[in-house]
Amino acid sequence: MEQSRPLDALNKARNKRVIIELKNGKQLIGSLNAFDIHINVVLTDAEERQDGEVKRKLGVVFLRGDTIILISPSE
Amino acid sequence: MEQSRPLDALNKARNKRVIIELKNGKQLIGSLNAFDIHINVVLTDAEERQDGEVKRKLGVVFLRGDTIILISPSE
Amino acid sequence: MEQSRPLDALNKARNKRVIIELKNGKQLIGSLNAFDIHINVVLTDAEERQDGEVKRKLGVVFLRGDTIILISPSE
Amino acid sequence: MEQSRPLDALNKARNKRVIIELKNGKQLIGSLNAFDIHINVVLTDAEERQDGEVKRKLGVVFLRGDTIILISPSE
Amino acid sequence: MEQSRPLDALNKARNKRVIIELKNGKQLIGSLNAFDIHINVVLTDAEERQDGEVKRKLGVVFLRGDTIILISPSE
Amino acid sequence: MEQSRPLDALNKARNKRVIIELKNGKQLIGSLNAFDIHINVVLTDAEERQDGEVKRKLGVVFLRGDTIILISPSE
Amino acid sequence: MEQSRPLDALNKARNKRVIIELKNGKQLIGSLNAFDIHINVVLTDAEERQDGEVKRKLGVVFLRGDTIILISPSE
Repeated sequence: MEQSRPLDALNKARNKRVIIELKNGKQLIGSLNAFDIHINVVLTDAEERQDGEVKRKLGVVFLRGDTIILISPSE
Repeated sequence: MEQSRPLDALNKARNKRVIIELKNGKQLIGSLNAFDIHINVVLTDAEERQDGEVKRKLGVVFLRGDTIILISPSE
Repeated sequence: MEQSRPLDALNKARNKRVIIELKNGKQLIGSLNAFDIHINVVLTDAEERQDGEVKRKLGVVFLRGDTIILISPSE
Repeated sequence: MEQSRPLDALNKARNKRVIIELKNGKQLIGSLNAFDIHINVVLTDAEERQDGEVKRKLGVVFLRGDTIILISPSE
Repeated sequence: MEQSRPLDALNKARNKRVIIELKNGKQLIGSLNAFDIHINVVLTDAEERQDGEVKRKLGVVFLRGDTIILISPSE
Repeated sequence: MEQSRPLDALNKARNKRVIIELKNGKQLIGSLNAFDIHINVVLTDAEERQDGEVKRKLGVVFLRGDTIILISPSE
Repeated sequence: MEQSRPLDALNKARNKRVIIELKNGKQLIGSLNAFDIHINVVLTDAEERQDGEVKRKLGVVFLRGDTIILISPSE
């Protein structure tokens, strides 16, 4: 049985809603449109949230990988 | 169907207005003139904004990629 | 006798519960599903803890390697 | 039509006055004498400014690329 | 006579007790089980200490190299 | 006419007095003895200055490149 | 005449007492036993000093290069 690699988890999350936490403490939620080996990410229908509330709508957003702490499929 | 990559989203935003957020908390808005794989970016007609107000006009500006958090096409 | 390498310890911890401490001071606990040479990690059944208490449930979570301080099999 | 790259904008600014903002918050103004792919830069006739006033004259100055946030041709 | 290299000192410390100081100010003590050229390290029988007192027991712990300041064989 | 590169400016400053500013806010002055592409630098007859006054004499000093903000020939 | 390189200065300091300043503000003094191109360093007979006083004895210590600001032969 082949062992899974971290990017496999991102592949499974393609076109699904994900939560992304950034090193500056911000939290973005959006549809995972694209990513690469640097973990540069593009979200669509993205919004920034704070304490569960939408702070602003961003639409399409490109995130530079080195600003990302974690990516998690949202419930 | 080929899967999209993060830089495709930047390619689509070429010559369009984008919002760029920097690690130092500043926000720049300008026309996306050029970018490379390091996410070094050149904006034209750029201005720095704070709380929705123009703080200063920068014209052409080269941004070093490692200072960028996110790039988003502006409404 | 061949000397062990650091990633051997992570291989032994595959599919076991691990504690991960992040540079931002947070602590995640989950099942070690995948990792790579950058120490990018995927946890399943993950939760964030603070002072021994569950702060929130994350389910599947991808962690960018450069945010990780340590990984330790939990008791 | 060939698409422009970020360093093209720096090439156009050669031997012209540019404003450089550093990660430590300082602002340098000088003539762009040289740069490389790391965005290491040499300014001539450089001076440090604060709130529009000259704080000190530096003459020739070599700047390490990873300290630079942005480079913009000055008006 | 061949000149010694830094990793030789770590090789001599294999399976011996070492003190490791991290960039976040924490101090770990354990048996040096493994290391690589990135200075990723695995300690066994590890514990975190503060002011000479054991703060918590960690057992096996993988440390990402870029969080380490120094490694010193303990007395 | 060949365009100058940033390291050319350092080459011209060899064996001359230079001011070096570090990311920790310190300022060193010394004779530029050697440098490499990482901007690792060796100064001789070096001293640390604060507000124009000599704070301590260092003699020969090796500086790791990633701690350097700028290098400028001193008047 | 061949131009000197930064690591030449470290080679000359081998087996001599050096002062090393770290990014966390600490100062170590010891005999320079080994170094590599990353400026990873091993000191022997090392001690940590603060304001000229010995704060603690470390014996052999491996220092990760990216934590080092400067290395200077001590008087």
